[in-house]
Amino acid sequence: MEHNTRRPRRNAIVGQSGGPTAAFNATLAGVVRGVLATGGIDRLYGMRNGIEGLQSGRLTDLCAIFTDGNGAPDEDKLRLLAHTPAAALGSCRRKLPDPDDPAGEPIFRALLAVLEQYDIGFFFYIGGNDSMDTVAKLSAYAHRVGFPLTVIGIPKTIDNDLEGTDHTPGFGSAAKLVATTMQEILLDCAVYTIPAVTIVEIMGRNAGWLTAAAALGRVSGGLVPDYVYLPEVDFSMSAFFDDVRQALARHPNVVIAVSEGIHLADGTPVGASAQNVDAFGHAALSGAGKVLEHAVRAELGCKVRSIELNTPQRCGAHILSATDIEESLRVGSAAVTAAAGGVSGVMMTIKRVSDAPYQSEISYCAVADIANLVRLVPAPFINRDGNHVTDECCRAIAPLIAGETLPVFEDGLPRFFVLPDEPTENGNGNA
Amino acid sequence: MEHNTRRPRRNAIVGQSGGPTAAFNATLAGVVRGVLATGGIDRLYGMRNGIEGLQSGRLTDLCAIFTDGNGAPDEDKLRLLAHTPAAALGSCRRKLPDPDDPAGEPIFRALLAVLEQYDIGFFFYIGGNDSMDTVAKLSAYAHRVGFPLTVIGIPKTIDNDLEGTDHTPGFGSAAKLVATTMQEILLDCAVYTIPAVTIVEIMGRNAGWLTAAAALGRVSGGLVPDYVYLPEVDFSMSAFFDDVRQALARHPNVVIAVSEGIHLADGTPVGASAQNVDAFGHAALSGAGKVLEHAVRAELGCKVRSIELNTPQRCGAHILSATDIEESLRVGSAAVTAAAGGVSGVMMTIKRVSDAPYQSEISYCAVADIANLVRLVPAPFINRDGNHVTDECCRAIAPLIAGETLPVFEDGLPRFFVLPDEPTENGNGNA
Repeated sequence: MEHNTRRPRRNAIVGQSGGPTAAFNATLAGVVRGVLATGGIDRLYGMRNGIEGLQSGRLTDLCAIFTDGNGAPDEDKLRLLAHTPAAALGSCRRKLPDPDDPAGEPIFRALLAVLEQYDIGFFFYIGGNDSMDTVAKLSAYAHRVGFPLTVIGIPKTIDNDLEGTDHTPGFGSAAKLVATTMQEILLDCAVYTIPAVTIVEIMGRNAGWLTAAAALGRVSGGLVPDYVYLPEVDFSMSAFFDDVRQALARHPNVVIAVSEGIHLADGTPVGASAQNVDAFGHAALSGAGKVLEHAVRAELGCKVRSIELNTPQRCGAHILSATDIEESLRVGSAAVTAAAGGVSGVMMTIKRVSDAPYQSEISYCAVADIANLVRLVPAPFINRDGNHVTDECCRAIAPLIAGETLPVFEDGLPRFFVLPDEPTENGNGNA
Repeated sequence: MEHNTRRPRRNAIVGQSGGPTAAFNATLAGVVRGVLATGGIDRLYGMRNGIEGLQSGRLTDLCAIFTDGNGAPDEDKLRLLAHTPAAALGSCRRKLPDPDDPAGEPIFRALLAVLEQYDIGFFFYIGGNDSMDTVAKLSAYAHRVGFPLTVIGIPKTIDNDLEGTDHTPGFGSAAKLVATTMQEILLDCAVYTIPAVTIVEIMGRNAGWLTAAAALGRVSGGLVPDYVYLPEVDFSMSAFFDDVRQALARHPNVVIAVSEGIHLADGTPVGASAQNVDAFGHAALSGAGKVLEHAVRAELGCKVRSIELNTPQRCGAHILSATDIEESLRVGSAAVTAAAGGVSGVMMTIKRVSDAPYQSEISYCAVADIANLVRLVPAPFINRDGNHVTDECCRAIAPLIAGETLPVFEDGLPRFFVLPDEPTENGNGNA
């Protein structure tokens, strides 16, 4: 390769990948702030829609957008960005080929060509498991061909299922929304005297962290659902019916939290066991909550409803965890500091230093070691019957939802940052 | 009846009835505050679960709960109550018989017996349409039999569908949550480049007010869904497909808001047209959103999802409309003032005095005139094609979501008021 003899690249690029979170853009704001504070990097480009935008050259000069006329950080705009949910740069769900597979060579070459065109030496990628796979592969390829590229992954996922980090940016805000909404639903369920079962379905296909947050009332003097079922435990329909019967014997309003990913002992997702057929003859894969709703109605004959918390879990930003947003910003800035210090091929991590008071520090680990691993809720966090979480679990999650931070409200609605549609760069930025 | 020769009753009672709202308890707090500030009323009882609790004598002395040792209002507790969603007293869905029907006589007699036992002369009932029916009937019956009872209805409903009032307490906070969540969902939908349709189902069986709130970004510089379908307009599946096709031709991310109550021209609810059959052989009445999701997938073959905002619309209290909470408190207090002034057989109303700045005043109207009427979204608030709301509509709703007020957060979770389980009174309160 001809690249390794060139002068070190001085520009940086950042991308977002995977599902939205409420703190995704806080980390992006942290990267922007880090670059503006770091002497060694001239420009920061944002790739639109992750590596899809990198490949097609859809880049935006973020320094131009987030500085005032004098080149100082536009703190108002950065604050607006940090409190805007989803992914300001757009996202993608693209997996890179194996860097050692010659068939994948053209894709990597195309990516490096754009990086070279824009004189980019620092690559930041904010995302979950699949995105860390991208980081690991790009890092490995660049290293193999001698392309001087500092590659850093920055974690984000509401699922909290990445290895190597105590928790992930984005989880705290999602957990706060789930925990808060559960308090509200528990009150809502308490208003009538007729026996009724309410099943709340919470996101999390493989890991039950977010569902566990439904029980946080337990350590903060709030209300607690009767049962919490996680995908870490095989789900038994008969044990579930027994649980519900016992709860109905105790009080009329039974509230249950279930992960979308709960499955039977043979691995069949509970949501797939319905095989609903709609008016158009299509099999409709129901959510686990809806399937359990029908099952309770059929088995127990009582009033039952299901509530799927759905997308607002990942994009709800009207009440954010101050702890999460602060850490998300910090991990973004720390990634730039690490990159400027010569670190590469890593994912940034959060280390819990203490619980009371809660303190954390930002570190990193080799991304190749953790990419594609899933961190499940550990056994001590699940009760013996497998139908609730332990106090230990709640105490571990509680600090992550502490503190409230709100977006800027104007005329009654939150004002969010929206990146201009058209890239501001057309290849003339790498002067 | 023997009652009309007795001295005027000096105690009051308040109940909550119908579906929860986030501002239901703010109105209750207003009534408590009003009673504590009014010399003419000794005690305020709360009926547990509305008239069900009245009939069975399940009453709680609210003055004892919401005053300090010196009989002064416990403002901290009242503030906690005002920011607690659902119905602190519990609710019911009980309809009273026709007051002129002799068959119903025993029920009315039973209610009056409890009122007499507790020396109650003032009856406040906070609720929606069915509750105003209760108010009108109890008022008519008491009047007919000469039982000295001042009866006042206080409106609440997220549906905003009561006649006689500019809007209803509870609507503003629900509309704020819907409008805010729509902003967040619109951002969430924008992150990918693949053409996709997102259908958001919003509460409202007959009236589309809450669904209309999905478009509020229009007058506050925010994002706006492509289409808004209300139950006030007959829904046409073919016109809907045309709409979606046109939107997909404009941009990849199409977002649609629909009321749960949309129906075809023959009156069939869209949600009833699915006839899903689940794993247990039961016909499952889908929501309108889920039915449209399947319809779009079948007709257009594109990526499509539906999101039912569900219960959090009525119990979500982590971000409240300051305007709504303030008015809900005020309407509760004003009801006590009106009752103390001799007004009876009315529903309290909110009059819009001006829009800029927004100002309202509390008044009342004869409850018999408005009970069981439904106030729909008027024609000028719906566009010509029947697939969106007008700016005029958004401007009318916008002031009602203005301002943010939050519950008290502790350890990251909102702290809510929960009434002790057991009634504090056992018949010894009418000394």
